[in-house]
Amino acid sequence: MSADHQATLIDGKAVAAQIRAQVAARAAALAERGVRVGLAAVLVGDNPASHTYVRMKRKACAEVGIESFYHALPKDISQAELEALIDSLNARSDVHGILVQLPLPAHLDEQRILSLISLAKDVDGFHPLNIGRLAMKGREPDFLPATPAGVIRLLEAYGAPFTGADAVVLGRSNIVGMPCALLLTKRDCTVTICHSRSRDLPQIVRRADILVAAVGRPHMVQGDWIKPGAFVIDVGTNRISDQSAKDGSRLVGDVDFEAAQRVAGAITPVPGGVGPMTIAMLLENTVTAAERSLQ
Amino acid sequence: MSADHQATLIDGKAVAAQIRAQVAARAAALAERGVRVGLAAVLVGDNPASHTYVRMKRKACAEVGIESFYHALPKDISQAELEALIDSLNARSDVHGILVQLPLPAHLDEQRILSLISLAKDVDGFHPLNIGRLAMKGREPDFLPATPAGVIRLLEAYGAPFTGADAVVLGRSNIVGMPCALLLTKRDCTVTICHSRSRDLPQIVRRADILVAAVGRPHMVQGDWIKPGAFVIDVGTNRISDQSAKDGSRLVGDVDFEAAQRVAGAITPVPGGVGPMTIAMLLENTVTAAERSLQ
Repeated sequence: MSADHQATLIDGKAVAAQIRAQVAARAAALAERGVRVGLAAVLVGDNPASHTYVRMKRKACAEVGIESFYHALPKDISQAELEALIDSLNARSDVHGILVQLPLPAHLDEQRILSLISLAKDVDGFHPLNIGRLAMKGREPDFLPATPAGVIRLLEAYGAPFTGADAVVLGRSNIVGMPCALLLTKRDCTVTICHSRSRDLPQIVRRADILVAAVGRPHMVQGDWIKPGAFVIDVGTNRISDQSAKDGSRLVGDVDFEAAQRVAGAITPVPGGVGPMTIAMLLENTVTAAERSLQ
Repeated sequence: MSADHQATLIDGKAVAAQIRAQVAARAAALAERGVRVGLAAVLVGDNPASHTYVRMKRKACAEVGIESFYHALPKDISQAELEALIDSLNARSDVHGILVQLPLPAHLDEQRILSLISLAKDVDGFHPLNIGRLAMKGREPDFLPATPAGVIRLLEAYGAPFTGADAVVLGRSNIVGMPCALLLTKRDCTVTICHSRSRDLPQIVRRADILVAAVGRPHMVQGDWIKPGAFVIDVGTNRISDQSAKDGSRLVGDVDFEAAQRVAGAITPVPGGVGPMTIAMLLENTVTAAERSLQ
């Protein structure tokens, strides 16, 4: 790489805007057939980040013509009450997708709640049956989890060479790291899954033609960990203090962007990379669910 | 390694014999409570290898006091007939485990058949819901697939250091490679999943503290691919011609055993390594299913 190399900026905002425009057109076509696409958002408790996410998702729904039904529940709601709500949402014909914002308070059985969501409405793709299909050759989940689907879509949009590429995924979470690893395996990458117990991370990351960072540690991945020309997808969204910023803080990813973009072939910024894609893919899953409900 | 280094031989026969003795004791305890443990084996068509596997499994059942119910079906059985059989086996109280020998003929929907097996009787652990739980943090499948469970049990028995170890899995099949990779990730290994599209296999394998080979290509893994001291688990069972053998052929693994055992720390032979463990784990799952049926 020359000293003034600059990686291609992977513009998640632009790709997400295209997807949202397509979703809006599909929702409009359904409206003409008398179907108003509906997403139910279930939020338990008063986690401020969860409230922000749900607000953003509802705003995005409104912009593409998807109706959102908002269920804000007290943090001490019982398992039985929450299950009854899921049952009723499963039964409603005007609800095509059900989103339960995670994490749930500790007294609730998250696994059981997610398993109760009708497969046809599991637009978050978190049902264990969908994850199982994701892990299996010859099977496809009904819906892909939104963030991993967004990661793959960005890589596709910028021409990442999947087959035979060395892909490294940092993080093995149920909602990002593991599904990303499974999707990249389905795309014929050679995938290495790293986590908090992994050793020699810099050396492992240096092999990556495709790097997905999803650990939630600001700037953990250094510039000299990046293989020249690599595709770098930064899922991290970490708030750090910055006295020069208006509110004294700013968002950064898991990758040291400034240093990495002098080495990588293509890289997502934070914010404006994966973030917008997550919501776009949720909207796409929801309109797909509505279309399928007519079949 | 010195010139006369010999890897520890991982004796799958001996470990499997211990497990079978424990299973026999548990089956006897159940018999005293009036419960005869039962496994239903379903075989479609006339694949000779499948017939051999089912015969071996039934023989092993008999040896530990598990009754086996044998359903040999014509290769042109319809999907509806096979589904009806699964339904009836799900309902029978004397059947605690259901084994559908794979592969099924192409006209049958294998995914649907496996999904119909009651989770409580899915002793092969192939239900997509069980695979999904295997892939997810904080969740555990009701049953582990037999061969991957046997791989892990052998590594445990011989003291493999899981946490932080570099594990390489060759092969991403639904029944061996992928579940092995997921189990090793749960054990805090850094896992790399390789397959037919992977490049530079020798170099990837040389990093492996733990190697699981499950590709079905005789002697593909060369001795100089092995990291000194590595744990090598060879799942391959390939028949090659050998004029010096009685029937003109013999079984070999995916690893060049002669060469590898001069470098590895511990290695499974073929036969006598993973093979006996697969059946032992199936028996263990079946007696576990019977015990749970009393709860």
